Order: sequence, then C-alpha cells, then structure tokens
Amino acid sequence: MADADPGRSPLERPGTAPAAPHVVIIGGGFGGIACAKALARAPVTVTLIDRNNYHLFQPLLYQVATAALSPADIAEPIRKMLRHQRNAEVLLAEVTGIDTRRKAVLTEDGARIPYDTLVIATGSVYNYFGNDAWAEHAPGLKTIDNARAIRTRVLMGFECAERESNAARRQALMTSVIIGGGPTGVEMAGSIAELARHALARDFRHIDPREARVVLVEAGPRILSAFPEELSAYALQRLEALGVEVRTGEAVEDVTAEGVRLPGGFLAANAMVWGAGIRASPADRWLGIAPDRAGRIPVSDRLEVAGFPGIYAIGDTVAAPGASGAPLPGLAQVAKQQGEHLGRELARQARGASGAVAPFAFRNRGNTAIIGRHAAVFDFGKRRLKGYPAWVLWAVVHVYLLVAFEQRVLVSLQWLWRYVTFQRGARLITGVPKEPQTAQGSA
Amino acid sequence: MADADPGRSPLERPGTAPAAPHVVIIGGGFGGIACAKALARAPVTVTLIDRNNYHLFQPLLYQVATAALSPADIAEPIRKMLRHQRNAEVLLAEVTGIDTRRKAVLTEDGARIPYDTLVIATGSVYNYFGNDAWAEHAPGLKTIDNARAIRTRVLMGFECAERESNAARRQALMTSVIIGGGPTGVEMAGSIAELARHALARDFRHIDPREARVVLVEAGPRILSAFPEELSAYALQRLEALGVEVRTGEAVEDVTAEGVRLPGGFLAANAMVWGAGIRASPADRWLGIAPDRAGRIPVSDRLEVAGFPGIYAIGDTVAAPGASGAPLPGLAQVAKQQGEHLGRELARQARGASGAVAPFAFRNRGNTAIIGRHAAVFDFGKRRLKGYPAWVLWAVVHVYLLVAFEQRVLVSLQWLWRYVTFQRGARLITGVPKEPQTAQGSA
Repeated sequence: MADADPGRSPLERPGTAPAAPHVVIIGGGFGGIACAKALARAPVTVTLIDRNNYHLFQPLLYQVATAALSPADIAEPIRKMLRHQRNAEVLLAEVTGIDTRRKAVLTEDGARIPYDTLVIATGSVYNYFGNDAWAEHAPGLKTIDNARAIRTRVLMGFECAERESNAARRQALMTSVIIGGGPTGVEMAGSIAELARHALARDFRHIDPREARVVLVEAGPRILSAFPEELSAYALQRLEALGVEVRTGEAVEDVTAEGVRLPGGFLAANAMVWGAGIRASPADRWLGIAPDRAGRIPVSDRLEVAGFPGIYAIGDTVAAPGASGAPLPGLAQVAKQQGEHLGRELARQARGASGAVAPFAFRNRGNTAIIGRHAAVFDFGKRRLKGYPAWVLWAVVHVYLLVAFEQRVLVSLQWLWRYVTFQRGARLITGVPKEPQTAQGSA
Repeated sequence: MADADPGRSPLERPGTAPAAPHVVIIGGGFGGIACAKALARAPVTVTLIDRNNYHLFQPLLYQVATAALSPADIAEPIRKMLRHQRNAEVLLAEVTGIDTRRKAVLTEDGARIPYDTLVIATGSVYNYFGNDAWAEHAPGLKTIDNARAIRTRVLMGFECAERESNAARRQALMTSVIIGGGPTGVEMAGSIAELARHALARDFRHIDPREARVVLVEAGPRILSAFPEELSAYALQRLEALGVEVRTGEAVEDVTAEGVRLPGGFLAANAMVWGAGIRASPADRWLGIAPDRAGRIPVSDRLEVAGFPGIYAIGDTVAAPGASGAPLPGLAQVAKQQGEHLGRELARQARGASGAVAPFAFRNRGNTAIIGRHAAVFDFGKRRLKGYPAWVLWAVVHVYLLVAFEQRVLVSLQWLWRYVTFQRGARLITGVPKEPQTAQGSA
C-alpha cells in the first residue's frame, strides 16, 4: 500500500503541513484535472477536492439528457484519472469555506485541509437571475442528476400523452421548452427534436411523437450570439428544418410546473430546460471579495486572485483578462489551458525557479456547437465551418477529447450504431417517485 | 400515424371492448415479453402494462450494483421491443387491482383497462420475512434504483474510509455484508471482492481497498443450496480464495444502519445487500386468493389461476407444478418458457382452435451462477460444469440472451476491456443527498 502512514498525509493531521509544498485544487473539472496532471512530476503534494467522485465531460451531457448516452459514458472516476500520480490524492468532500489567514480549506464534514498554494477551479452553475424557484421546473444542465431528471421528464411526457385523451393536455405533455439560445440550448433543442421524430417515431399507438413541439426561447436578437451571424443564421435554419420553434427577442417572464410565460402569452409545456446564462461558483463568498455581475472573481493575467498571494483561480469561476481585454469566455478549452499553464508554472516554481507565474495567453482552438445530424458549426476566429464537415469534425474532436480509451471506443460505437439506426440506447425512465420494492414487472 | 383514432383503443374508452379479443399482460419481464411476442401474428389486441418503461435483464443487475455496467446496458425500452408488433401496445402504469367480475385491470391513475384474457406476470420482490424495516438498510437487487443505491453505498464506503482516521470506523466503512447465499448473493459477494482487490486497488492513498471485508451470510447449511453439493463446495472454495468470509448456518437477527446482528455478535458494516428469499408480487391480493408461504399464487399445469377462467399467471409470481410435482423455481428461463408457451396457446385459441391451453412442460436449459473471474457453475441436471469453461459458457449465454444487438456488442466490448484491464467503467456515485446546482467541480 503506497501511503499507509497517516502521518504523511495533510488530511489525517489537520494543521501540520506535509513535507513537500502542498497544492490544494478545488474542483475536478477540465481546469482542476489539467492543473493536477501538470504537477505530476513536481516536488509537491497535490490534493484535488471535488464533491463528486467523477470528472464529467460536460460538453456531452446533453446526450445523456436526451437518452443517447449513459452517464458512465461521459464520466470518469477522478481517482482513476490520478491513480498513477503518486504525488496526488483525491478527496471527495464539499468545500464550505477558505481560512485564508491560516491557509486551510474547510469542508462540510468539519475537516481543515491546509495548503501552501490553493487553486480554485469550481466552475459555474446556471443563473436564474434571482428567480431560483424556476430551477425546480426548468433545471439547467450541469450535473448527471440534472441530465437524468430532464431525460425522465421528456420521456415521461410522451408516456403520459399516450394515455391522455384530452387533446390540449396531450399537446402540452409533448411540448418541450428550452430557455436560452446558447450552444447548450441549441444542442438540447435539436437533440429533443431528433429524439421525437426518429428514435420514438414508431413507439406509440395513440400519439405521433413527430407532433412533439420543441420551442427554443432566446431573449437576445439571435441564437448562438457568441458566434458570427452567418453561423447563427445557419443554426436557425437547421433547427427550423428539424421542426424546432425558435423565438428570439422573447424574455421568459415566469416558469411554473405547467409551462413558461412569455411576452406573447403562456406556453403550456411538460419539459423545460434552462440554459440562459451561468453564474460562477461561490469562490467569491469563500474569499469575501466582490465578483462581477456573472459571479466571477477577478484574477490577474497570472491567474492569481488580486490581494490573495498564493491563491489562484481558473476556468468558469474567474474573469480572466483576454487578449482583447474582455474576460475570456467560460469554455472547457479555456479552463483546460489555464489549468495546464498554471500547473506547469507551479511545477517550475516548486523546482526552485525564481519569478512569478508567467502570464496566461489563450490559444483559441475553435468554438463549436452541434445542431443535429450532419449539422454543426465551428468558429476558428478567421475561418469558419458549418454543415456536414463541421459535424464530422465535431464528432472526431469530442470522441478524441473523451478522457478514457474505453469511453472513446464505447461512445464511438454507440454513435455509429445510432447513426445507422436512429435509435437511442439509454431511454430509461428512472428515479420517478415510488420506485422501490413493490412488485410489478421485471424492473 | 398508426392509430390516431382513440376509438380503436381499449385504453381511451374504458368499458368498450376492442374489435379483436383483448389480451392484457401485466409485467414486462421475461414472461410477459415472451408472451406478448408469441402473440405477434395472432388476431388479438395485446396491451402490455408495466410500471417501468423498460425490460430489465435482471441476471446482470449485480454488475450495475458493482459498477461494471451501466443501467442502459441491461435495460431495453419495452416500446422499442414491441414497436413493430402492430397488434400490441404498451402502457406505463401502476396496477392497483383487478375487477374480475367486470374483467378490467385497475391502475393507479384511475384507468380501467378491460380484458378478455388476462396474463399476470408481475414477478417477485425480496422477502424480509416480516422485517420490512431492514429493506432501508439492506436493499435487495430487483430494480435499477436498487442497483444504483448499492453501487453508491459501496463506493461511498471507500471514499469515507479514505478520510477516516479511526481504525475501527474505517474497517466498518470497508465492510460489506451480503445476506443470502443464493446465486445473487454469491455473485454480489464475488463481484464486490473483485471490485475492491482489482478495480480500486491503487486508487486510494490512506486505505488499501484490498483490506475490504466482504461477508456472505447464509442461514442454511451451504451456499447455492439449489445446486449439487459438489458445485456449492466449489463456489465456497472460490469465494474464500477471493477473500470472502462465508458464514453458513447463521441467520440474521437484526439489520440496522450500522450493520447486522448475527448469532455470533454484531457485525459493523457499511454496505448491506439482501438476497435471502423472494416473495411473489401482489397478484394474490388482486385476486383475493391465498398464496403459498412464498406469496406465489397456485396455477394449474395449464397456467390458469384456479377458479378464474381466462386469467393466467406465469413466472416468479406463480407456483406452477413441475415434473417432480414440486413447484418450478423462480428462474428467468422458466418465466420465458411459460410466456412463450402461453402466448402460442392463446394465439392458437384466437385462431379458432378448440381445446384449452395445453399443459406446460419445463425444459431445463441449465441452472447457473457466477462467482467471479474464471469461476462459474452450471447444473444441467445430469451433467455439471464448473471453473473456466463454465465461466466462458456463462458469458456467452448471457451476452447472447441480452435483448438488443446494440447491448450485446457494448456489453461484450466492456467485458473484454474489463477482462484485460481489471477496470470498472461505471464507478459513479450519484443520487447522493444534495446533488443539485451548487457550484463545485465540473460535475
């Protein structure tokens, strides 16, 4: 057993620092994992803390929400990712605060994890702009449980519609509303539309899933506003070809269990998904500093939190100055590059090199969104790509980026299978109230 | 749209019988599905009712519980299975009773589904012998949610042990107790032991998962009591080689959140799994007849419920007389053969053939249980098989029996991958209280 002696661990003896400088990373997302891995050969002890035991490949979470993939296909146990990195350990815990004076991270179960260097990579959550009650009816798409809840909601809608004799109620049960026309919203809208018109097409006897209504609501003037207008227009045209109703310039006024209220009136719906704007993690409260309106904490181009030497922050949770001066967008590739950069720099320092962390410069690898079968968009800054080639590139890139080899193979195979059959393998309705052991059916 | 006119459906207009004789099947397990499929070309209308939207391949559920497979790998949407069977429809509903006088099935949402012929295939649940409070601490292994709960429990035990400094508590967190030495208990014990000594072996820094304790408790004199003594002895020897503590002749006296009380004293444990005896579904209450001590309702060798002409019952829920006179065991192959037989016979009758349902004769295809890597047992009655060849045969048979082609390929591939790497792909801790959108990590 590698490390049987509790004495060597900073976790077992709170307060006593480990022999090697202790780098604590909060968050096992793209940024946190990249940072930990970049420290692999450095003379430091790394502790990565996450509230989940897995790293989630969020860009594909919408496929779990639409029954295309299983959670395990896009999630990798963090321990497995770092198992061979002898200087790293993983802690499953909920962080509740940071004692910056005594340099310790506080967790819900009352532990104090001392640090010499702290990296905050806690990501972001969806922002309901003060209407947090809406979250219950229109979950965002951040966690596996979110995705499962949405999947169950969408599939249950069709099941209930099948036995609903009232036409209006039946239509409502077959109506999905996606709020927010960003990449997630576009992906969800396209994916639900394809689920209804292909995967479920012949499954029912009293309803036609192809009559399902998918509405994408965007408060701004166009969807995919972060992309060039040309690509937004293409995405709009492709979504409408899939039968998605796109409503731009309409801000949601209310979200209830029955549907959403829009300027045009109330829209009765069964499944509602929130993708309108994100809010950064609670790092601002932990540090007691003022975030920007998106909840992001300010960091220098060296990724250090202003006024907190030795505390760095990366990814969705920070507003890091980009080349243009505007903060860098909350993208996986930004978080990943920041994590790699910071890890390399901290390793350099640990090896005794002088000087602070070098400024971080983002290299844009291309911003992408997928609308559906044969339809995606890529924005590389100067160059752009759309349609079939973009869709192929999207698939290649995402399979490649998937963490483990096993996942890559399985996901490729499932995509290939689904491409040929139009089927969805993970159409399970689970976690519905009253699942437990009462007898009926085999399940 | 196949069937837009609600008038054609027995579901939409309760009380009015459909044109063709209406066969209602309760339960989408092995028996119910086989019966529905056997009626494919018969001049009848088939309605299959299940409380879940999927058929579950229960023989592999233990692999979900031990993080080897994802739920979707072993579950197939019932609608998908019957989508091409024009005379069949699927209803997702919870049956609450049967109105035998007016010949209608009653569901929770107040619907009445009239039937001409009724097939009850509602399976079984675990039997806590009057101690239903134990179910909360030691779930059985019948549903996907059961399996997820057990998986989360086992994995969380190691996570908590990793940060537990008290040696006794740490040992308890790494202790699993499986109650019941039948095939499910043996499979769970072997699989948890392999999870600990292989998949998790190098994942932790402060504990050695190989020190995990797996205890299999059996009240009877030997495990796998349904098998020949020779195979029981082999299973025992293989389990002990895996480090499993097998305790025969010990009946559990109490199950609490902290562990189980045995004649030998209290055994502190984290994960407990119940596999000791099953109880048939509530069909007896629905019909108001006296079941046997296992809750099974008596049927004739024609699978008809005594005193209820036109009502048949198959699978785990019945005590059907076998060749020896003793009731047939609750096995998937029994349910499947009964379903096929009954479906064929009902189809024959519907085509106008005279005479009652022919007596059912069970053809034993071999009873099997898997202990672990390279270790399984088969009992074909006269012949027996154990060890490596039995293990290979077990794998081939189970992959072959998996419903959909896609599942076969994916499961084969995952097994192959795990065989080479000793890894487990589905090690996700989900559904733990307080998952929702609070920011931390990528997941």
